[in-house]
Amino acid sequence: MPNPRPLVALTMGDVAGVGPEVIARAWAGSELLRLARPVVVGNSATLRRAVALLGLKLEVRSIADPEAAEPGAGSIPCIDATRDDLGSVRAGVVDARAGRAAADFLGAAIDLALAGRVDAIVTLPLHKESLHLAGVEHPGHTEILAERCGAPDHAMMLYLAHAEGSRRPGLGVVHATLHVALRRVFDLLTIDNVDAKIRLADRALRPLTGGRAPRIAVAGLNPHAGENGLFGDEERTVIGPAVERARASGVDVEGPIAADTLFGRALGGEFDAVVAMYHDQGHVALKTIGFDRAVNVTLGLPIVRTSVAHGTAFDIAWQGKADPSSLIEAVRVAARIVEGRRAIVGSASA
Amino acid sequence: MPNPRPLVALTMGDVAGVGPEVIARAWAGSELLRLARPVVVGNSATLRRAVALLGLKLEVRSIADPEAAEPGAGSIPCIDATRDDLGSVRAGVVDARAGRAAADFLGAAIDLALAGRVDAIVTLPLHKESLHLAGVEHPGHTEILAERCGAPDHAMMLYLAHAEGSRRPGLGVVHATLHVALRRVFDLLTIDNVDAKIRLADRALRPLTGGRAPRIAVAGLNPHAGENGLFGDEERTVIGPAVERARASGVDVEGPIAADTLFGRALGGEFDAVVAMYHDQGHVALKTIGFDRAVNVTLGLPIVRTSVAHGTAFDIAWQGKADPSSLIEAVRVAARIVEGRRAIVGSASA
Repeated sequence: MPNPRPLVALTMGDVAGVGPEVIARAWAGSELLRLARPVVVGNSATLRRAVALLGLKLEVRSIADPEAAEPGAGSIPCIDATRDDLGSVRAGVVDARAGRAAADFLGAAIDLALAGRVDAIVTLPLHKESLHLAGVEHPGHTEILAERCGAPDHAMMLYLAHAEGSRRPGLGVVHATLHVALRRVFDLLTIDNVDAKIRLADRALRPLTGGRAPRIAVAGLNPHAGENGLFGDEERTVIGPAVERARASGVDVEGPIAADTLFGRALGGEFDAVVAMYHDQGHVALKTIGFDRAVNVTLGLPIVRTSVAHGTAFDIAWQGKADPSSLIEAVRVAARIVEGRRAIVGSASA
Repeated sequence: MPNPRPLVALTMGDVAGVGPEVIARAWAGSELLRLARPVVVGNSATLRRAVALLGLKLEVRSIADPEAAEPGAGSIPCIDATRDDLGSVRAGVVDARAGRAAADFLGAAIDLALAGRVDAIVTLPLHKESLHLAGVEHPGHTEILAERCGAPDHAMMLYLAHAEGSRRPGLGVVHATLHVALRRVFDLLTIDNVDAKIRLADRALRPLTGGRAPRIAVAGLNPHAGENGLFGDEERTVIGPAVERARASGVDVEGPIAADTLFGRALGGEFDAVVAMYHDQGHVALKTIGFDRAVNVTLGLPIVRTSVAHGTAFDIAWQGKADPSSLIEAVRVAARIVEGRRAIVGSASA
C-alpha cells in the first residue's frame, strides 16, 4: 500500500495578521491538497471569518483529533487550540490575546508532532510584540520549538525547493550567525559553531537529495575568502578547520569558498546547501535573485517544521490581498522532507 | 557637425596574459568599432602575434600619434609604448619585462588622456606579481592612475550597463571598503568615507543618466540595516549621518537600506547606484545574478577610465580561448561616459 500524503499541521499564527486568510486562499487553490493532507491548528471561528472575507465556498469543520482530519477541496478541518474568544481581536493591531493564541496553536501542534499524530508542522507568522504582551518569553516560533522539543542545537535553513518537473535541485542556506551586529560575528564564529552548522545542513538535506549524500559548501568570511591570509585569517583559523573536521566525519563538504562566486555555483546545481557566515551573506544572494519561493526549515528538531517566509503583514491583514504562495511552498518542502525520510527509513529496513 | 565616436585608448596590459588576443578577437567582431574609435597602446609586434594566433585577417599599424589612428574593420592602429623586445616573454609566466611594459602602456595612455588626445582609457589586465618584479611599487592600475592624475580621492565602481535597446537602466556599485579583512571594515567606515563614496557615485553616474540626477542608495552594514539599533549602531552613528550630509549637499540619496532587499530594488530600476559597505555585500549580489557584463569604472579621476572585469587568465593565455565580451562592455561604458559628458557640457554652454 502506498504511503498516504503527509499529514501536515498548519498553525494559524497571529489572528490579527494574514495567517487565517492565507490558509483559506491556499485551500481554494488546487495545489495545497495535492501536496499534503493539511489540518489547521488554530481557531475555527476566525477561520470561518477569513473564508467569508474571501467569499469562498469552504466549510470549516471543528475537529478534536488530527486522525479525523479528512481534508477535502471544500472542507477545512480545524483543531481548536485556544479557549479564548478571538472575535474581538482587531485586524492589524497588536493584541495579547492573539499572541497567547498563537503560542497555544504552536504548542498543540508540537504535541501532536512529537506524538507522531501529524507528520510535520507548517507555521503561519506570529507577531513578536503580541507574543511578548502575552507574557511569552520566547521571541518567536523557533525558540518555543527548540525548548519544547529539547533541541538546544538548532538552526534555520532557508530552502528554495526545485520546481515541479525542474531538473534543477533545491538549495538550502544555513547561517553560522544570523540576527546579530556584524561586529559580533567574529566572536560567534568558532570551529564548533561552523562544524555544527555543516552537520545540521548535511542531516537536513538528506531527505531532500534522494538518498545521495548532500554536497555542502562553506563560504569564506573575508573578501576572496581571505586570499591566502592577505585579507583576514578566519578562513585559516576557524572555517578551514571546521570544514576539515566535518569532512573527517564523513560529510561531503568544501570550503571556505569566496562568497561572491559561491552562490552562483550553488544555484547552478554544484551544491545542495551553503553554510553562510553571517546574515547578509546568504540573504543578499538569495533575495537579489528573487527568493520569494524560499521557505524556512528548522534544523536540529526531532520533528519536521517549515515556515512561510513572510511576516504577519499587519498593513494588509484582513483585506483579502495576502498571497498564499509562500504557504504552498512551505507545505511542499515539509511534505518532501517527510517523504524523503520515509524513503530513507524504507530503504534502511528493506 | 555631430561629434565623432569617442577615441578610446586600449592599454594592452600584461602581454603574457590574455590582453593581446582579447583585443584582436574584439576587433574581429562588429561591435567594438561601432561603439568607439579604439586605438591600442601597447606593443605592435605582440599584437601581430595575437592576430596570427587567432588566424585573423587584420593589419596592425604601428603609429606614433592617436590623431592618426583611423581604426577600421581590417586595421588596428597601435601606439608602441615600450622600448623592450617582448618577443621572448612566455605565455602565462610571470615576467618582469611584461610587468614593466604594462606599466609603460598605462603611463603613455594616461599622458594622452590628460593631454586630451584620447577621450578615455580602457585597460586590459596586468599581473600584480610581474608588476612587482619590475620594481613598480603600485599594486595595480588604479593606484598608478590615481598618482599620475593627482587624484587621492578615488574609488572603483562596478557598472552594469543597460543593454542596447533595453529600457532597464544601468546600475553602478561603489564600495566604501573593498580589499580588506571584514574585521577592518569597522575602522574604515567613517562619515567622511561614506559621504565621499556617495558623492563620487553621484558625479560618476551623471553622464550615464541622461542629465537626470542619479538616484543613489546606501546599504546598511548590519542585518536589517541594524533594525533600529537592535543589531549594531553603525547605521545611526556613521551611515545615516553620511547620507544626511550628502543629501544636504544636493545628492538624491537614500539609506541606510537593508542590503538584502536593496539590490533587488536597484536591479529593478529604483536606483542608479548602490554604495555598499564592504566587498562581499556588493559582489555577492552582482556575481550571483551573473554579472559577466559588469565592468570597472575608476571614479574621482580627471580622465575617463574603465577596465575589463577579468584578470590576466594565465591558465588560458595565448590559447585562443579568451572571450572579448568584457572588453566590449568596458568600451561601451567608456564611450557612454564620454558621450554623456559631452551632452552635459553641450547643454551647459547652449
